[in-house]
Amino acid sequence: MGDTIRVVVVGTGQMGSGIARLILKKPALQLAGACARRPGRDGVDLGLAIGLERELGISVTTELDALLEQTRPDIAIQATCSTLEDAWRELNILIGHGVNVISIAEEMAYPAAKSPIKAEQLHQLAIKHGVSVLGAGVNPGFVLDLLIILLTGVCAEVESIKATRVNDLAPYGPTVLSEQGVGLTPEAFEQGLSNGSVVGHVGFEQSLQMIAAALGWELERIEQSREPIIAEVRRETPFVTVEPGRVAGCLHTAVAYRDGRAVISLSHPQQIHPEMEGVETGDLIRINGAPDLNIEGRPEIPGGQATVALAVNMTPQVLQAAPGLYCMADLPAPAAMLGDGIFRRFGRGKRKREAR
Amino acid sequence: MGDTIRVVVVGTGQMGSGIARLILKKPALQLAGACARRPGRDGVDLGLAIGLERELGISVTTELDALLEQTRPDIAIQATCSTLEDAWRELNILIGHGVNVISIAEEMAYPAAKSPIKAEQLHQLAIKHGVSVLGAGVNPGFVLDLLIILLTGVCAEVESIKATRVNDLAPYGPTVLSEQGVGLTPEAFEQGLSNGSVVGHVGFEQSLQMIAAALGWELERIEQSREPIIAEVRRETPFVTVEPGRVAGCLHTAVAYRDGRAVISLSHPQQIHPEMEGVETGDLIRINGAPDLNIEGRPEIPGGQATVALAVNMTPQVLQAAPGLYCMADLPAPAAMLGDGIFRRFGRGKRKREAR
Repeated sequence: MGDTIRVVVVGTGQMGSGIARLILKKPALQLAGACARRPGRDGVDLGLAIGLERELGISVTTELDALLEQTRPDIAIQATCSTLEDAWRELNILIGHGVNVISIAEEMAYPAAKSPIKAEQLHQLAIKHGVSVLGAGVNPGFVLDLLIILLTGVCAEVESIKATRVNDLAPYGPTVLSEQGVGLTPEAFEQGLSNGSVVGHVGFEQSLQMIAAALGWELERIEQSREPIIAEVRRETPFVTVEPGRVAGCLHTAVAYRDGRAVISLSHPQQIHPEMEGVETGDLIRINGAPDLNIEGRPEIPGGQATVALAVNMTPQVLQAAPGLYCMADLPAPAAMLGDGIFRRFGRGKRKREAR
Repeated sequence: MGDTIRVVVVGTGQMGSGIARLILKKPALQLAGACARRPGRDGVDLGLAIGLERELGISVTTELDALLEQTRPDIAIQATCSTLEDAWRELNILIGHGVNVISIAEEMAYPAAKSPIKAEQLHQLAIKHGVSVLGAGVNPGFVLDLLIILLTGVCAEVESIKATRVNDLAPYGPTVLSEQGVGLTPEAFEQGLSNGSVVGHVGFEQSLQMIAAALGWELERIEQSREPIIAEVRRETPFVTVEPGRVAGCLHTAVAYRDGRAVISLSHPQQIHPEMEGVETGDLIRINGAPDLNIEGRPEIPGGQATVALAVNMTPQVLQAAPGLYCMADLPAPAAMLGDGIFRRFGRGKRKREAR
């Protein structure tokens, strides 16, 4: 047990529960406790809270400070929110207790995109307390940024980058569907954009700034647009029925400019049952440079599963990094964590985790 | 100039020349000198040696020690050979002079695959002299290892991995063609395998061990096979004509076993003009796990260009790493180096290189 990594999960929603279940399957990790925001979760057995059919003998708590004092974890995975602002208080408590952090909050994928000042504060706080902090997730954090960055590594020059992630919202529940405007009339969709109830994808600014920083580009501006995807045939899920003429999803695009020229164009059409109108899901990356690259993944990397896996799989990289704030492009590439230890992967052969 | 990275190139063949030409295009890098093995290159102007139409006012030398004492570079890129044994003497001189190293020698992609003892010696020597050493290249080093490793990062479980790199040897010269047996009769191909003149791909053991180490898998054994690709139609390049029935290339495969089961299967058919018999070039990765992944790049990432770019693009990562020996999976992902500085890419925003 001496070499086992003690992990606390902050958040017991769909993502937090998936992360906790995966931690239980990893011999190198020990699920030390869980904190929830919802008062109703307080005192519930963690096994039941995360959808297992057995109790774990650990109670979910809503008191993060007390949990950390009791369990003294090596690392915490935060899965409670999307924005930097909303993540802020928990991040400060975790770092203040000397706990390393992986956050799946979208804005944590590249916090400087939203607030360079807050990012610098997090970085300094992490250094002060000797811990490492990483934002991880499938998108932002992997498909439309890290994977693109890695691919440019084989390029002598890059003129422009275009990438599209086409997914299917049919497996998702009412919250996600309504954030993408699914089922609305085109007019209600426009209204939703105005009043903020229709959101589209959260993460384009983070992805674009992460790519630009990795490549050494200064961006002039970022332009985003959100357009309704109008159904031409009836599309249906357990939670919504979309008649022809209504909104089946949201086509969200973001374009980054440099020297007056569009250099990075990201597109993420999210809708229910795209296949019903002949649209295949997938992740498509096209780099116009020397050489040109053309990479396709079909179907798309599934978002929920991938975010859960990335959050867990990045624990070795975060534990082995020097104190500070990191994005996915700053640390060694993620890898499925399939062994029974935390290994370093040096070319000289693998070995057990070393003290920092 | 104060923040410019001084780079020496060791080797002025096709790869070394390409690397030197790319360094000249990067404002953050300064080409400080070059060393060649061939005596005929001694004293030749570096510009002419690397195929430019202008002189650079720097003479190529064959004396590596003297070059390093004169130029005191930050980093050297080694492009002289394929094997660890052949790279050994230059590596020791470079590290001994306190110079960071990127080597494109195939066996340096994961030196522990060939010799864990030599890898450990390099690691200790690098630490002793305070420098970082990396093996980089397209394959091994990127397509059939790093890219696969990165993709498994979104997986909770991995059952097996299959990847194929289909390329076209038509652009290559006589040396490469003869190493793959192009133009031989099937009998002469078999003979070439026996006497070592037909080699196939150099790098499978390195790729397989790099993947296994990153995932935490212990491999039982690796099985390799090399089969002739027999032409059914006449195929022709400036250097070779292959009549039907003769060898158009070599299908080299390598399979890694674990618990009696094939877990990683890599395949690299190399031939001239595969399109003449309906074979499309490309890089194909299929991961059987949770989730399944299916990624294709078409055409394949071009080997020569990609190796040159990777060697140059990894300079920031190597300079910013703690002293030691690294493989591509140990350092932050490569990225095209397009800015005029060496940036750190922290989520808090980019900044100039900091002292180690």
